[in-house]
Amino acid sequence: MEAIFPDSVVVTNKSKIVFLIIDGLGGLAMEGKGGTELQVARTPNLDHLAARSICGLLDPVAPGITPGSGPAHLALFGYDPVKWNIGRGVLEAFGIDFPLQENDVAARGNFATLDPQGKVVDRRAGRISTEMNQGLCAKVRERVDLTPRAEYYFEPARDYRVVLVLRGEGLHDDLTDTDPQALGVEPLACKGTAPRAEETARLINRFLSQAQEVLAQEERANGLLLRGFAKYRRYPSMEERFGLRSLAIANYPMYRGLARLVEMELHPVCKDMRGEFAALRERYQEFDYFFLHVKEPDSRGEDGDFDAKVRILEEVDALVPEITTLNPDVLVVTGDHSTPSKLRMHSWHPLPALLYSTYARVDEVERFDEISCARGGLGRQPMVNLMSLALAHALRLTKYGA
Amino acid sequence: MEAIFPDSVVVTNKSKIVFLIIDGLGGLAMEGKGGTELQVARTPNLDHLAARSICGLLDPVAPGITPGSGPAHLALFGYDPVKWNIGRGVLEAFGIDFPLQENDVAARGNFATLDPQGKVVDRRAGRISTEMNQGLCAKVRERVDLTPRAEYYFEPARDYRVVLVLRGEGLHDDLTDTDPQALGVEPLACKGTAPRAEETARLINRFLSQAQEVLAQEERANGLLLRGFAKYRRYPSMEERFGLRSLAIANYPMYRGLARLVEMELHPVCKDMRGEFAALRERYQEFDYFFLHVKEPDSRGEDGDFDAKVRILEEVDALVPEITTLNPDVLVVTGDHSTPSKLRMHSWHPLPALLYSTYARVDEVERFDEISCARGGLGRQPMVNLMSLALAHALRLTKYGA
Repeated sequence: MEAIFPDSVVVTNKSKIVFLIIDGLGGLAMEGKGGTELQVARTPNLDHLAARSICGLLDPVAPGITPGSGPAHLALFGYDPVKWNIGRGVLEAFGIDFPLQENDVAARGNFATLDPQGKVVDRRAGRISTEMNQGLCAKVRERVDLTPRAEYYFEPARDYRVVLVLRGEGLHDDLTDTDPQALGVEPLACKGTAPRAEETARLINRFLSQAQEVLAQEERANGLLLRGFAKYRRYPSMEERFGLRSLAIANYPMYRGLARLVEMELHPVCKDMRGEFAALRERYQEFDYFFLHVKEPDSRGEDGDFDAKVRILEEVDALVPEITTLNPDVLVVTGDHSTPSKLRMHSWHPLPALLYSTYARVDEVERFDEISCARGGLGRQPMVNLMSLALAHALRLTKYGA
Repeated sequence: MEAIFPDSVVVTNKSKIVFLIIDGLGGLAMEGKGGTELQVARTPNLDHLAARSICGLLDPVAPGITPGSGPAHLALFGYDPVKWNIGRGVLEAFGIDFPLQENDVAARGNFATLDPQGKVVDRRAGRISTEMNQGLCAKVRERVDLTPRAEYYFEPARDYRVVLVLRGEGLHDDLTDTDPQALGVEPLACKGTAPRAEETARLINRFLSQAQEVLAQEERANGLLLRGFAKYRRYPSMEERFGLRSLAIANYPMYRGLARLVEMELHPVCKDMRGEFAALRERYQEFDYFFLHVKEPDSRGEDGDFDAKVRILEEVDALVPEITTLNPDVLVVTGDHSTPSKLRMHSWHPLPALLYSTYARVDEVERFDEISCARGGLGRQPMVNLMSLALAHALRLTKYGA
């Protein structure tokens, strides 16, 4: 799985590379629909592009493995998704723009409702508002103290969601969740799964018992559940690895966080999908690489709404000329993972992909869909290879070896 | 080659997975025959299934590598065939149902005929009977003694074949064969290929010189040749790795041994191929995973009998409805390795494979043969991926990463 990619072959030039990433792109045929979502959708622009491109099927992590958004995007950005697997806590911290430092341990948290016996009755505290969340976080920060052992940051995210960050010497993330992910049971104590993390576990339990006192009188948010403890390691940036000045155009916090993880610059959140394509045009002269992320098809897939996914794919298709008229040196269109309406969730199915470039060895694929791309010249391969392929077609990689 | 398969994503459910493994399935076109064995065979059931499945070509170990049955089956069972390569001695011990313990060193042996100068004249001792073999083994056991250094087990297999197992502290398997695999030369002394194994080599030579004395007066079986020394490590079971309660339906000792290695339950030996398919039906409620092994096509391929291989493939095809009428959640049809009649031996050619499931992204392949499957949606990939793919399509794998 590890992509063979010696950094030493990277060179820079003035070429432009655009990745149009359609979240949840891949699908499955459903009875009575006449094919997959992409097959059924009228996508003349993508089909025209596919006919002038090299196409294939990409496995985000490995055949059969359903990826979370983290591993899938890291693979797209050319980072081995297993070697660089990102923990949930770190991803959440990036999602709220928290400035993590190397070796910080971060966790995702939920405010929750506990009954008088201390058992969880609502893992989301009745979906309290972000404003209430902010007030509760301030209260906790005021009264919970872990000095001198460590500093901590307790930050509100959207609705009932929070991020806890511990900062100090010798912290580790071999830790169990305190969120039981079930109702009718008490929150769990945090435990070290390796001896080195036992002291960190005690520290977290100290935090939780103090926070519990602060929250005890709250009506709905009288409990706190933590999960996905993860220690932050800095990722080598897109510029360091590939010599690419990179811009992320993405409207959702998680994808913005993932782009920031590899040190892309972030374009401000746009009003809608059309705004994202317009932003590409506005910022086109400033960068080498553009990550343009479209979220909506994934959401329609998760809703199980085949027809709505078809329609949104057609809307994306209609915007494709916004990119092609810029005439980028390399244009890649693919997704991060499949979200078939039939399954209503992320799936393991590989992603159709096209790579357009004047140096692409154009194959016989004439339609951009999962079945047609299976016959393409890229074949079926690990998604992590895509970045090397894009760089190569942009003439940004020199010869490897003597 | 290592499949990326994080154990943490495995979940269990009530789904049924059937692997129909047609030994020696893949072939080659032969002059005047009009295609490969599979292309020439009339296989309407397999073709109908292929048209509703996702198809591809699988490499058991790696492109160009001809696998033994051991690595090929381990790959089928989802175990990296290089990392988990099984030594010949261990495979033979499993084949006779010997209860190996961790760190035992096992070897395959042949009774042989030596001339008065001690040179090998028949590596199979005139194919003595199993009964004679049993008597000779008893004699050896009575008179050869390795105490206090080690215990040993000297067990008859079929005809002239035996298994030697050494048990004791600090035994190693970095050892050379004593079987010269040639006539007109003396059996070789066993040597350690690493310093740590030198003492084990001396122990084996002690065993051999004592056994030689016991056998000296025999007419045909007056010698003993050992090869394939291998130390046994326990394999994590199918249930531990995949949460699968597994049944092996296989009539030949080697395949039964391989299934036992990963702790499948073994169905008793059936009368014939038809009996094996009937057994699947009888035991269908008891297990999650079924390994149904059909040996005959490999034997016809090794005979170089193209037409007989075609006929046996047609017989297998006629039995396929015995499986499909059970309506398993996932049905895989493939082989362990190719055995083209043209080559009369195992070969490196990849195996055609089909995976049927309601969640398979059905491709355009409409016939089950080597050439058609090359255009399938599975593409060409390592065989070890097949188990992850089967588990995924049975919805037995959850999301990897945040």
